[in-house]
Formats: sequence, structure tokens, C-alpha cells
Amino acid sequence: MDHCIEPLTPVSFLDRAAAAHGDRTAVVDGEHRFTYTELHERCRRLAGALAPLAHGRPVAVLAPNTHVLLEANFGVPWAGVPLVAVNTRLSAGEVAYILGHSNSSVLVHDPVFDDLVDEVCASMDAPPHRIRAGAQYEALLADASPAAYVVDDERGLLSINYTSGTTGRPKGVMYHHRGAYLQALAMVGHTGLTPSAVHLWTLPMFHCNGWCFPWAVTAAGATHVCLPRVDPAEVWRLIREEGVTHLNGAPTVLSMLAYAKEAEPLTGPPVKVATGGAPPSPAILRRMGELGFDVTHLYGLTETFGPVMICDWRPEWNGLDAGEQARLKARQGVGNMISCAVRVVTDGGADVPRDGASVGEIALRGNNVMLGYLDDPEATAAAIPDGWFRTGDLGVIHPDGYVELRDRSKDVIISGGENIASVEVEQAIADHPAVLEVAVIAVPDEKWGEVAAAYVTLQDGASASEEEIIAHVRERLARFKAPKTVTFTDLPKTSTGKIQKFVLRDEAWKGSANRIG
Amino acid sequence: MDHCIEPLTPVSFLDRAAAAHGDRTAVVDGEHRFTYTELHERCRRLAGALAPLAHGRPVAVLAPNTHVLLEANFGVPWAGVPLVAVNTRLSAGEVAYILGHSNSSVLVHDPVFDDLVDEVCASMDAPPHRIRAGAQYEALLADASPAAYVVDDERGLLSINYTSGTTGRPKGVMYHHRGAYLQALAMVGHTGLTPSAVHLWTLPMFHCNGWCFPWAVTAAGATHVCLPRVDPAEVWRLIREEGVTHLNGAPTVLSMLAYAKEAEPLTGPPVKVATGGAPPSPAILRRMGELGFDVTHLYGLTETFGPVMICDWRPEWNGLDAGEQARLKARQGVGNMISCAVRVVTDGGADVPRDGASVGEIALRGNNVMLGYLDDPEATAAAIPDGWFRTGDLGVIHPDGYVELRDRSKDVIISGGENIASVEVEQAIADHPAVLEVAVIAVPDEKWGEVAAAYVTLQDGASASEEEIIAHVRERLARFKAPKTVTFTDLPKTSTGKIQKFVLRDEAWKGSANRIG
Repeated sequence: MDHCIEPLTPVSFLDRAAAAHGDRTAVVDGEHRFTYTELHERCRRLAGALAPLAHGRPVAVLAPNTHVLLEANFGVPWAGVPLVAVNTRLSAGEVAYILGHSNSSVLVHDPVFDDLVDEVCASMDAPPHRIRAGAQYEALLADASPAAYVVDDERGLLSINYTSGTTGRPKGVMYHHRGAYLQALAMVGHTGLTPSAVHLWTLPMFHCNGWCFPWAVTAAGATHVCLPRVDPAEVWRLIREEGVTHLNGAPTVLSMLAYAKEAEPLTGPPVKVATGGAPPSPAILRRMGELGFDVTHLYGLTETFGPVMICDWRPEWNGLDAGEQARLKARQGVGNMISCAVRVVTDGGADVPRDGASVGEIALRGNNVMLGYLDDPEATAAAIPDGWFRTGDLGVIHPDGYVELRDRSKDVIISGGENIASVEVEQAIADHPAVLEVAVIAVPDEKWGEVAAAYVTLQDGASASEEEIIAHVRERLARFKAPKTVTFTDLPKTSTGKIQKFVLRDEAWKGSANRIG
Repeated sequence: MDHCIEPLTPVSFLDRAAAAHGDRTAVVDGEHRFTYTELHERCRRLAGALAPLAHGRPVAVLAPNTHVLLEANFGVPWAGVPLVAVNTRLSAGEVAYILGHSNSSVLVHDPVFDDLVDEVCASMDAPPHRIRAGAQYEALLADASPAAYVVDDERGLLSINYTSGTTGRPKGVMYHHRGAYLQALAMVGHTGLTPSAVHLWTLPMFHCNGWCFPWAVTAAGATHVCLPRVDPAEVWRLIREEGVTHLNGAPTVLSMLAYAKEAEPLTGPPVKVATGGAPPSPAILRRMGELGFDVTHLYGLTETFGPVMICDWRPEWNGLDAGEQARLKARQGVGNMISCAVRVVTDGGADVPRDGASVGEIALRGNNVMLGYLDDPEATAAAIPDGWFRTGDLGVIHPDGYVELRDRSKDVIISGGENIASVEVEQAIADHPAVLEVAVIAVPDEKWGEVAAAYVTLQDGASASEEEIIAHVRERLARFKAPKTVTFTDLPKTSTGKIQKFVLRDEAWKGSANRIG
């Protein structure tokens, strides 16, 4: 019965889009416009160009949300190798670590990162083959023959997405074709993508492969509008001039849009916004609603191909007041269409009661769970001890089945949609000669959702300023990971000498947060 | 990596709906209303009741669109056996053939079919165990323990849907879990089902398992409104009182709604209508549009889990005049989201040019193609000679990639959404002692789309009336298969004596038709 076994792979959505919507606009990127026939041809040529260069090893891309990164989501798998979309906010050392750990053979990069890539490659014994977007990339495509590796194992490795969510060291989350295919279909269904949709790329494509939207938007035959940088004026221009109907992003992005001076109520149908990374605040939900945006709150992790839960809107909530609606919408919600198995479990693995009060860990299983962490069987086994992936997030389950986060069991700061491992920042600070001990926690921040705050006890007789500590971290880590404040103080401790971060947190922070990416 | 291999099965959508939308209305059926928690429990109990009765053999259901047939779409697979949803318009002989051929152990039936089932069972050597909907069915559920067979092979047999599309003998089309799961997701995406959607069951659930909508509506967490009979007044009442947002049906159903005396422009958002079985006419599209319905045209066959192609609406068509829109909308369209492979091929298997003029046969492959015909490897091999399923439908492919039917290579009459094999009607008529030879063709009919018309040459010296011939057919076949007219005439023939049906057709019929079911 081979006739009815087509391996599930998200790259097939581009075959379908080229066959079904070939003459329609697939991509708008500044002055560039490509039809689906053209995008298909470009991705096939990219595959043909990359295959001989990759030698079966991954291809990494370091680029903002341009057509080049979008093309890589199809062209790299068609070259028969996994895609590594690198977070553009990382330091040279972090990028070099990811290129080395993933064993990437090729690095496609945007010209804006020329200096960073110079530094990265200079630090590596065996730097990857560099391909610079622009003239070099276009010449490569022009010279290449179209090619497409035939996916024969839907459980094969599609991409590797590095997370820094749980420890100081980035882990390579391995995506499979089947999971990305199904996740893309779920996203089409939940966000209502159609051939008339115009999707604006306000979410980084390097986050969970853009939550699988490179494939979802293509599955629907909709239009991708690329956006290298979230500039509110540019977003508002594109909404008006390109007829944007859909966009995704962290609540930070929503705030930038909602409070931009260009913000004016939409005159057409609502723009659908999917947001994750932290619960959207009631104020932002109200403001976005007034402007004509229809906001859906999602929850997920890199390990789950992005959004694994959705705060599915119920028609019976339409009649509630705005405050109550915002409270309901800020919950993490229910498993998405393809996630039949979401649980909140005790340490022993039993389900907590659906009472909105009993706290447990959110556990998931299904086709949208990663294969595992690259070259890290211990971490994989720890994350998936019994067939259920443990998110590390604590939550409750309400009587209506909706899950709400209560606290994080892992020590993560989510800042502007990026995960920062507090231990990583602590280690950087502890490296300073004047520092005795340190604790880093998340504190609320109006712009970024959360930022890192450091609490430091200095060595006896030593001295250091706040600026000095922050500069010290910036030399070692990506800029966004540096603490925004440094407080010099004695640290609260248990009788056994363990630092009580919750005492520090209680001062600064109440409530819950969630995360995608 | 077992943690990320969940077999794809559409029954899992009810697990997800019960977990995510347990307290919300799943089913409205007259006075009955069930939440998703209740529907889940009822289907689990149905499984528990059926498993010991089925002995591993299929369970057949003969019922209109009631909650019982809906429950069977989950409860029968959970009993670990395939579902056979029998067309309620068939004669006793045809039903008996299907029960015997499928080896069904149990027949669940609606009380409206008591007499038919008596006749069916009397004619069988080993009639199935009968379960009558109503008190007996409810008692069975009340006494049963909830059970759910765990699907371990997503390629396993989910259901058997009998078609009479191509020959006089019904063939058992075997559906697999994976195909139905993916098809349901595609239907959610293409028709925009959400938790706020209310789906009215105007399409028979016995057609291609209701085009997979029992599972699609459930996947979205939407509400099913059952409708045992398409009564226009009742449909209009339910649209208004239950807030129906979605319905499906043959163009015949659309005509009944559009020209009902209760028809009045909708005051809310457009009701989304998916139609297949024949291309909707410009007049009906215009009328439905005026009333506030948003009609999408689909094309498919029993062998493809229903709609395998969709006339995806393109935003650039919004500015065209109504006539041009109707012409574009009446095309069969492009492969649906999960159908990456649709071709129009010559006899030799080569693709025809995309010129809107070169005629070829529509060929498909993918996950939404049947396993094959039950116990009929020859017919399966004939239908899928080279990995591509041949639809038997001839069409052209336009420069924009949209496929349009041009003629049927198989001799099928599509009447009110039902397929009638002309050869079957011809055989019934030829059985009459006065008949010498006969040809049956489809002729256009305002109400049913098409009806059968018979052209008969009588034996020398014999006589028979039109009424007599029609009554003769009705004794042998389902009522809807009887010709509406009988013309006594000499038949046009080729020099080798083959009847030239096209000469008869040219008189009566121009253009194209398509079919689902």
C-alpha cells in the first residue's frame, strides 16, 4: 500500500503551494517579491547549491527575518541536511559553540552580521563554509541545478534549534519532519490561515523555526511579508500597505505596536495576532482589542515545535467584561489540535485535580515533541523520563480544562521573548574577582516583560560598581543577558546555606509567566 | 523515541476535545444535548458494549444523521473494529449485500428503518446482531464499561465505505486512521472550524464518513447539530436558533435552502458552506451569496476520504463580477492542504500541459488515498496501477493550476449527491421481458443536479409503458436509481454495433460535473 504512504514533511507544502498557487505572491521582502513558483525554484536551487557543500552535515543560517532565512526552511531540508537557524542576538562565543556543537558545514549569513561572523570564524579551528546573502548567494542560486532530497523517513532530522532555557549551555533540540508537518497544520487551523492571508514576520524565524509558520503560511498558500527588524512604524506601514492579516510575537512586540505613535484603529477586519513568551497583560489585550487586533495566547517551548497549547477562545466568553476576558485569555490554555495529551502531574507522575489550585508540572506527549537533545542522551532522558516530556513549568489545571502557569521549576528569565538561564548569568558574574556570591532572578519590566536582576555579595575588602559588573557580563554573554540592575547585599539563605531566591523574587515579582522559544 | 510517535487516529480528537472543551456542547440532536465530556463517555461505553459483540468483525450502522451515527464514528473504532456506515437510501438487497460483503457482525439501526432491517435480516443466512437506537441502545450504554482500543497502527483499517460509483456492484473502500486524521485537519483548515463554530449536519454522515467532518468538527472543539432529514424549514430554524456557522452538502441541498420560503438574508456573519457532488451553478452561487452564505466548492471521491481538491478562493478574484466569480468557483480547484500530488495525465501517464484545453485523467497520490477495495485486489490494482490513484474523471488543468472536470470516463450519474452506475440501471431494465436493448445516461435536473434517463428499444412485437419500466427498476434498486424518464427509440450505434451514448448525451447535457461520495 505504498500508494498511500507519503512521508509527512513540511517542505511538501511548498510543492503544493507551487502547484496550486504558483502565480501568486509568496514573499514580500523590501523590494523583492517572489511568486510561489519562483520561491519553489529558488529553494530547489538552494538545495542544489548546498548539497555538495554540506557533505551531509547541517547548514546554519544567521540572518534576520529575510527571504534568505525563509528559503533555508525549505532549501536546506531539500539538500538532505538539517537546518540550524541561529539566534541573531547571541555573542560570537555562543554562535561558535552552536556551529561547533551542531557540526555545521556551511553558514549562510546576512551582511549585517559580517563582523560577528568574522569573529566567530576566527575563533574556530574548522570554521564553516561561509555564504553571504546578497550577490554571492544569488550567484550561487543562479549557477545551481534544482534539486530536492526525497524524504523517506518522516522521523528524520529536519532541524536543530538551540535553546538556553534550562542550563547555561545551549542544547540542540532536534525536530523531525512529521512533527513540523503536523504542527504547521495545527497552526493553520488555530490561526485561520487561508490563501487570502498575509503573514507579517514579527516573530524571529530562528525561534522554534518561527513556530513552524514558514511551513504553515506556505501550506495555506498565503503571503509571507519579511521584516528584518521589528520597527513599529514599519509594521504599521506594512499592515496598511500590504494588507497584513496575521502576525505573531512576544507581548513585547504587541506593546511596541500598541503604543507606537503610528498606532491607529484598523479600518479592515481584525488582524489576528498569536502571542507567546509571556502572558499578555490585561492592559495590552484591551489596547490591542481597541485597535482592532484579535489576540490569541499560546504556550510552548523549543522542545515542542513552539506552541503546544492554545488559549482557545470560547464563544461563551464573548459576553464577559474586558477584565474577565483578559484574565481568561492570559491562561496558557489547552493542548492544540494535534496535542491530545497534556497533563499537569505531581512529582510521582499522577494527575493533579482539576481545581485551579493544585500545582503540578506540565507534561506533554505526542507528535509535536522533539526527538531529543543532540548528542545529549542524559539531558534527553532527564527531560523525557517516562515517555512524557517534562516542561519544567509548574501550573494548575482549571475545572474547564485550561492550564495556567503558576511558577517555573527551572530558573529561566524570559526577556523580550528570549530565554536567559539565570545560572549562566550567575556564572559570568561570579567570574568577577570582586564577587563572593551572586543570585540572578527575573524581575518585571515594562518593555521586555522580564529582565535579569543580580544580587551580589562582594568579597571582604573588595569593591565593584554596578556598571562594572554589567560590563563584565556583556564581555562574556549576549547583550540581552546582562542584568539590568545589580544590588549589593547579603543574600537570604536557608539554614543549610542554600540561597533563597524566592525571597528576592517575592519582593520583585508576583504571578506567572510562560514562554515560547 | 517512542515519546514522539503517537499513531495518528481521528478518534484521538475526541480525547482532546473532552480534555480541552469537556464542559461545552458537543452535540445538539433534537431534544438531546451532550457536552464533550458526555460524548466522550458515551463513545467509550459504546466501545465497551460493542467489543464483545463484534468478535473482531465490522460494525455497521444504518441511521440518518443522528447522535447515534456520530457516536459510532468514535465508539466503533474504539471497539477495535471498522465502521460500516450504510447509505440509508439503498434497497434491502443492496444493504444485505454490503452487510454480507463486509462481514459485519453487528448492525446498529435507527427505528425509522425497522421494516427495512427486518427485510434485510430475513434475506440473510447469518444476519448481524441488531441494536436498535433508542431504549435498547441507551440500556446497552448504561450497562457497559467504558473501553478504548489503543490504535497501534495508523495504517490500520478505520472504516469501510461502500461506493457504487464505477460498476453495478458496491465496492468497499477501506479508510485508514492516518488518512482520516490528516483529512480532518485539512478540513478544519480549509473551512475555518473553531471552538465557536456550529456545524449543521446537512451532509449524510454515510458519505465518505461525512467527508471526515465527525472528526474535523470535534478536532476544532466545535458543536455538531444533527439533522436526520434535510428539511429546509428546519435548516433555516436551526441556522437562526442554534447559530449555525458551517454546513456541507451537494448543490441540491443549497438549492433547497436558497429557494425555501423561509429563506431570508442572514443577519450575522456569513455561514460557510462547502459543496461537492457537482459544480454549483452560477445562479445558486449568486443566490447563496445574496443570502449571506460563503460557498466553497470541493471535489473528491469515496476513495479519497471525500474532498481531495478545493477551489481555494483567491483574494484577487474579489473584484471580479459575479458571473466570472461563479465560473471560477465552479472549477474543481487545487489539491487540498495535505494533497501535494494532483496530476492530470494522459493514458501513458504523462502530465498534460497547463493550458485549460488538453484533457487527461485526474490522478492522485498521498495520505488521503484509500488502502484499497475490500477483498478486491483486481479492482484495487486497476484503480492504482502505478502508485497513482486514477479517479476515472477527465479534466483539464488551467494555467493557474486549477483543475476543471471535462467529462467522466466512468459511466456515473450523480443524483442529489448519490452516485448511480448507469450499467446497474441498464441491467435492471434489460431484465424486463419486453426490452431488447437499453442505454441509461445522466440528464440535467433542476432539483437533483442529474437524474437517470433511459432510452429503450423494445423487442419486436412487445410493448411496455414508461411507468411499467420505472416500477420494474424500483422493485430491484433503490428508488433514487430509477430513471425519471423512459424514451422508446432506436439507439445510435457505431459501425461495430456499440451504443453511442455520447449522441444521446449531446442532446441532453453539456459541460461537466464532479462528485463526492
